[in-house]
Formats: sequence, structure tokens, C-alpha cells
Amino acid sequence: MAPRFGTVAVVGVGLIGGSLGLALKTRGVCREVLGVDREPLDEAVARGAVDRGATLEEAAKTAEVVVLATPVGAFPALARALKPHVTPETVVTDTGSVKRHVLTHVAPLFGGRFVGAHPIAGRERSGVGAAKADLFEGAHCILTPTADSDPDAAEAVSALWRGAGARVTSMPAEVHDEVFACVSHLPHLAAFALMGVVDRTRPGGIDPATFAAGGLRDFTRVAGADPVMWRDICLTNPDAVIAMLEGYLDELAALRDAIRRGDGEFLLDAFAAARRVRGRVAP
Amino acid sequence: MAPRFGTVAVVGVGLIGGSLGLALKTRGVCREVLGVDREPLDEAVARGAVDRGATLEEAAKTAEVVVLATPVGAFPALARALKPHVTPETVVTDTGSVKRHVLTHVAPLFGGRFVGAHPIAGRERSGVGAAKADLFEGAHCILTPTADSDPDAAEAVSALWRGAGARVTSMPAEVHDEVFACVSHLPHLAAFALMGVVDRTRPGGIDPATFAAGGLRDFTRVAGADPVMWRDICLTNPDAVIAMLEGYLDELAALRDAIRRGDGEFLLDAFAAARRVRGRVAP
Repeated sequence: MAPRFGTVAVVGVGLIGGSLGLALKTRGVCREVLGVDREPLDEAVARGAVDRGATLEEAAKTAEVVVLATPVGAFPALARALKPHVTPETVVTDTGSVKRHVLTHVAPLFGGRFVGAHPIAGRERSGVGAAKADLFEGAHCILTPTADSDPDAAEAVSALWRGAGARVTSMPAEVHDEVFACVSHLPHLAAFALMGVVDRTRPGGIDPATFAAGGLRDFTRVAGADPVMWRDICLTNPDAVIAMLEGYLDELAALRDAIRRGDGEFLLDAFAAARRVRGRVAP
Repeated sequence: MAPRFGTVAVVGVGLIGGSLGLALKTRGVCREVLGVDREPLDEAVARGAVDRGATLEEAAKTAEVVVLATPVGAFPALARALKPHVTPETVVTDTGSVKRHVLTHVAPLFGGRFVGAHPIAGRERSGVGAAKADLFEGAHCILTPTADSDPDAAEAVSALWRGAGARVTSMPAEVHDEVFACVSHLPHLAAFALMGVVDRTRPGGIDPATFAAGGLRDFTRVAGADPVMWRDICLTNPDAVIAMLEGYLDELAALRDAIRRGDGEFLLDAFAAARRVRGRVAP
């Protein structure tokens, strides 16, 4: 069967961009993957994540689909640099963890040809060295088309991610940003803040981290996430993140108040409810 | 080499009590382990965690060391039931996750013969079916002797846990309760509260738990912990837990305020610091 796509360009060949290139090549979804990056692409080429490096201009002129896969903070400048070179047929998409910001700052440059996407995948390690062809297999990928999106552009982005092995779901960008503020952005802030408490606590001169087996350790994968990426996420999804933080502060204050008044029934109900939610999260 | 102990009695033969029995038997630390439990001990005997079941009275009269290994909430009543039967030589200890409460409500009944202990080990599963002989190998065990403790009783409890494979550290009960409020009790409350937010969030009618791969999943082991055990911990270590919750609320509010004012530098510093602490927690 002929590949669905001719040339796909990946801008930013790290964990996500590199894994997408590997998946598209391995699964025969496109004929050629171009990589655009500030850094040399020798390792990406050697690993088969891209066929060759290209300039942004060449990528814009050659590729059917251009995928922005850098940190979100770099998107607006890249989009402006890309804009003069795209054809009326070029489909532009991204892999960012926030979507309203992208709709505001990137999509308008490309009209109906831009359709945002967010593949829900990651590893503790980053960079193309951690890329793998099956990173997206069975993973969710959220698309956030709008009423202005060209249907064929939306279908192309959907086909790209289905081709990479993902389960594609569409939802409005606002809904996406709230869902991920809840299940991803808030948990990261919760873990970062916990590390802050550990850092500032020294009972009897003891570093509590020495005895971390009792629960804290489970938070450390999340707390080790890339600080720049998480700064960008907080600053580009502030409304939903602040709303979730407020909800979290309320939950914690309610637990504190129940402990203060010795209300075992309230605590038991809250902990039992948490255990049931946990069953939905990790069935 | 002769076993260090003759008879050891374990009161509450679940994950911790059962693993202690298995470890003491497997490693030849004592001649005999008696089990005291409300439930039949057939499985515990079949697994070799205890040699046989006994009444609290028989355990008190026969054992050199009696180990309270039930949930903390049951300690005071058990201690009162045990008290009339112990000999002046009987050493009494416990495995509870809080220590000031135990010093107040249990230790006075046994004078210098009581020495509190807290083995830092656990599994997601509970009950004697999950017990294993190597649960404490290389794990920390905290002892909280006081100025009133008999030195030979403290040495017996230390020898018991060293015999089970643990690394024994002593500290005051107040310090213990703050350290574990920080590294264990607060993380559990943080995870329970996160599940509460997920439970109360339905953007666009979507259950966010569906898309939990992005960070929340790492918190679910902790959030699935036994509600009764965690209610007891909160109610028996309220001062330290409330102090840690207050510190956590401050950390979270500071992150919220930084997001609100768009302060990327503050966020970057906080996240980078969290990453460094994480290196201390999980080196």
C-alpha cells in the first residue's frame, strides 16, 4: 500500500518529534521525514527518526504536513518564520500540551490549514536519544479543530496520528486545557510544591528525604520534569491552571480543617472517595 | 548459632506483622513466633509467618518481645488488655506510623519496657497474603526510645529489627512524627486531595480520569492506600500533619500567585529547585 503522505516535516526533533518521525517511517505512513532543529541532526538521522535535516523554508515548501514539536514557548516565533514559505495546501499542526494559547498565537497565521494536536505520551528521559517508534501506540492524541478548520486539514492530522498508532479524540481547545490542567498540570505543580516542603523542613536537623520510602518517592518522576517546559505550560494555560490550583487548595484546606476538629468520619469518606477515583484513573 | 530470642509474639498478623514473623523465622532470629489476631491464622501458619495462634494472655506470659502490629487506632485497647498479663521482663514494642501518640497512650502502661518502632516498608497490597520474608531487608526502621526506656529493652527491639534485615536509626518521637508528616503523611493527603479535584471536574462533560497518562497516574498508588489506616494516622499525628499542610498550602499559593502575575523566573527557580530535591529523594 502506498504511504498516506509524501513528505512530513518535524520541527524540533526531541523525544516527541523524534518518536513521531520513527513511528511514521517504521509504520510506512509517509515517504520521507524532514527534520528542522537548531541542533545537528546526526543522531536523529542515525536513529532513523528523520531522513535528513532541512531549513524551515525548505520544510514549508516541500512537506504536506509541518509538525511543530518544540516547547510551546517557541511556537509563535517559529510560526512567523514559517508563514511566508508555506503553500496554500500545507497543513500545519503541533504537539503542544496547551491548546488555547496555540489557537490564539499560531493558528491565525495559517487560517483553516492549522489544526492543533496533543499526543498524550512522554518518558522520564527527553531528547531524540529517548525517542521510540512505539511511543504513541495505543496512546491518546487530542485534536482541537475549530469551526474555521478545513475538514481535509483536520482529516490529515487525524490520519497522521492514527498512522503513528494513536487513538485520536477531538474536543474544543478550552475543554482540552481544563482536562489537562486537571490530570497533568495540577499534579506537576502538586509534586513541585511537595519538594518545596521537603526542602524547607529539617526536623531535629534531619533531611526528611533520607526516609522518603513512605510515599514521597512516587511523586519524584513528575517532580523531575523539565523546568522550562513546565514554566511555559503554566504561563500559556494560566486560567485553567489557576482554577485547578484553587480547587486543590480548597480540598487540602477541608482536610486540614477536618483533622483540626478531629472529624474522622469526614476523613474516612474523603479517603474512600479518593480510592474510588483512583480506580477510574488506573483501572 | 542459637537464636537471639526464644518466643516473639506478633499482635495483628497482616502485611507488616506477617512479614516480621516470616523474616524472624527465615533468618533464625527467634525460636518461635506466636500470632495474635481476631481472624483465624490458618493462612499465616501455612505461610510460616507464625508458628501458631495464641491469646493475648498467653502471648504476654510466654513471649520475650510482644510486637503490636495492628492499625494504630487499636493500640490503646490492646495495650490495656495486655498489661495485666505481662511479666516484668516482657519487652513491648509496636510498628505504628506515628510515635508521639504511642508514647502518650501505650508506653506509660509498660514503663521502661516499652520502646516504640516504625519499620519503613509497605506494599500496595495488604494482609498476610502479601507478607514476604525480605520486606525489611535494607529498609529503615526508626526507634523512638526515651530517657525512661530500659537500655536492655531498647537493645532488644533494635536487635529484633536488625535481625529482620532493617537498618535501625533512633530519634525522638517528635522528630519522627515531623519527618514522616513530611515524607509520608503529607504526600498521602496531597494524593487524596488530587483525586478529589478529579472527582469534581467535568470539563465539557468529560471525565478527566480518561486522560490520566499525563502525570496523575503516578499518584494513584498512594491514593489507593487504606482509608482507615490514614484516618488513624491523621487523627493521631494532627499537629505535625497540620503544620506540613500549612507549609504545602503556602507553597501552592506562591506558585498560583506567580502564575497570576506571569512570573516565569519564579516558576523556573521553583521547578529547578524541586528537581534538585527529587535527586535527594530518589538518588
